[in-house]
Amino acid sequence: MSNDSRKPGRWFSTRFRVRYAETDAAGIVHHSTYFVWFEEGRSELSRQVGMPYAELDRQGVVLVLTRAEARYRLAAHYDDEIEVRTRLEEVRSRTAVFGYRVLRVADGELLAEGTTEHLAVSRQSGRPMRLPEPFASAYRAAAGG
Amino acid sequence: MSNDSRKPGRWFSTRFRVRYAETDAAGIVHHSTYFVWFEEGRSELSRQVGMPYAELDRQGVVLVLTRAEARYRLAAHYDDEIEVRTRLEEVRSRTAVFGYRVLRVADGELLAEGTTEHLAVSRQSGRPMRLPEPFASAYRAAAGG
Amino acid sequence: MSNDSRKPGRWFSTRFRVRYAETDAAGIVHHSTYFVWFEEGRSELSRQVGMPYAELDRQGVVLVLTRAEARYRLAAHYDDEIEVRTRLEEVRSRTAVFGYRVLRVADGELLAEGTTEHLAVSRQSGRPMRLPEPFASAYRAAAGG
Amino acid sequence: MSNDSRKPGRWFSTRFRVRYAETDAAGIVHHSTYFVWFEEGRSELSRQVGMPYAELDRQGVVLVLTRAEARYRLAAHYDDEIEVRTRLEEVRSRTAVFGYRVLRVADGELLAEGTTEHLAVSRQSGRPMRLPEPFASAYRAAAGG
Repeated sequence: MSNDSRKPGRWFSTRFRVRYAETDAAGIVHHSTYFVWFEEGRSELSRQVGMPYAELDRQGVVLVLTRAEARYRLAAHYDDEIEVRTRLEEVRSRTAVFGYRVLRVADGELLAEGTTEHLAVSRQSGRPMRLPEPFASAYRAAAGG
Repeated sequence: MSNDSRKPGRWFSTRFRVRYAETDAAGIVHHSTYFVWFEEGRSELSRQVGMPYAELDRQGVVLVLTRAEARYRLAAHYDDEIEVRTRLEEVRSRTAVFGYRVLRVADGELLAEGTTEHLAVSRQSGRPMRLPEPFASAYRAAAGG
Repeated sequence: MSNDSRKPGRWFSTRFRVRYAETDAAGIVHHSTYFVWFEEGRSELSRQVGMPYAELDRQGVVLVLTRAEARYRLAAHYDDEIEVRTRLEEVRSRTAVFGYRVLRVADGELLAEGTTEHLAVSRQSGRPMRLPEPFASAYRAAAGG
Repeated sequence: MSNDSRKPGRWFSTRFRVRYAETDAAGIVHHSTYFVWFEEGRSELSRQVGMPYAELDRQGVVLVLTRAEARYRLAAHYDDEIEVRTRLEEVRSRTAVFGYRVLRVADGELLAEGTTEHLAVSRQSGRPMRLPEPFASAYRAAAGG
């Protein structure tokens, strides 16, 4: 019997405006910025499920990123209002996979999609560990499992 | 008969030290930074094959990123000397795929690997176009094709 | 008779949370980030006085930064809610000076203060020019002049 | 009798190329980036005087930035080779002031100048402390004092 959840959960949402410093000489948001936005989405999800990311930190657990991927469809520009939708796509005993959609609020266009994979690691030992409670349960609940 | 090259080319290399601003509160280099480093590797490859990235810009061609992926194995820390190895993994008429390896110079450990996929787009029309000469040929040569 | 305004205007305010990517290995927000926040404050002021920064861009005018200064008092940490207060401190025919205060919302503590000085420059000629209308008037109004 | 040194020391130099991610939609390097470059200059100075910045960190001392200022003269562009010159302008028992010049290598033009002021703080207590040896002596030697 497993506590794993492989059914994607519901989307959590956060909005902000594109900063000038996030653009590059091509006049659009630099692609590396989307990973910062994904992290914002992840933080917001954690806040909304009552599990602030900062709390994990205080428990000595680091959610190490093991893989990050973004697929870009349309460019974002300075001052655009952006919505990042984030969901848990899979939660296992030591790993979690988050999915992201980045939209332009003005017209609802999908700008980019992405995925990040995380491994729970003890800050002290540097070794993988089980996602601690109450995170594991909260994450599983958020993941619809 | 095709001009495509799907055989990975040789590795091009560039080195630099981790900047303090690239670290985060976990004491390690923030994962989004690796995409900036990949871009540095790409710039270096373009310089070495005699096709400065800036020249593409002057020709009105943008190599739009359509996908970026990184897989992280070991953390990088402030002041570490880093080597980024970059190669062309595939060149087609309108697309190019670059591959990356990020190493810690001190002990040769592989810290991360990645891939970026690019589409040649006209800055004026915003539409996909063939990779212009002499880039196409230079890239194909670099890709070993 | 002068249109200059050297009387500081009222404060405009914007709020956001500290992003993890904005922290560094000392566990606090990297000092360079405050200049990005100042720019956010400047953007917000421009939006609120009905002069979106992007519009200047469309008119071919660049507000070139000629000087930036920050004085740091207390560190900001990941997830802190931040308020940036921005005001015009001086508007002349070709220059504008903005002032900033960065506060921690939770307790109202002042984290940092700063100033940026700007020169209106034509994108085409690269030469200084008078702040175009309706910016000049709007800025002067915002500056209390 | 004082150990203070208020005579500027010699310049230490480091070079690198402008990264694409450092540019903004105005086609030039974003002004906040210069503070990251100043930090690179500071790191290089510390390395060259045999006092790696990372060592301070290991001793539990943080050189807290209390003030940062940049004056901008000419823009830097993608791929420009940049030289950052850094010197100690003043060293006191608990504070150090660094000065910076950013030059474009191709023609030696001065792009920007700046200053940062630092206060030695104990990581444990968060309180100001004397610059520990051998940093104090090394810094004073570098500052020409």
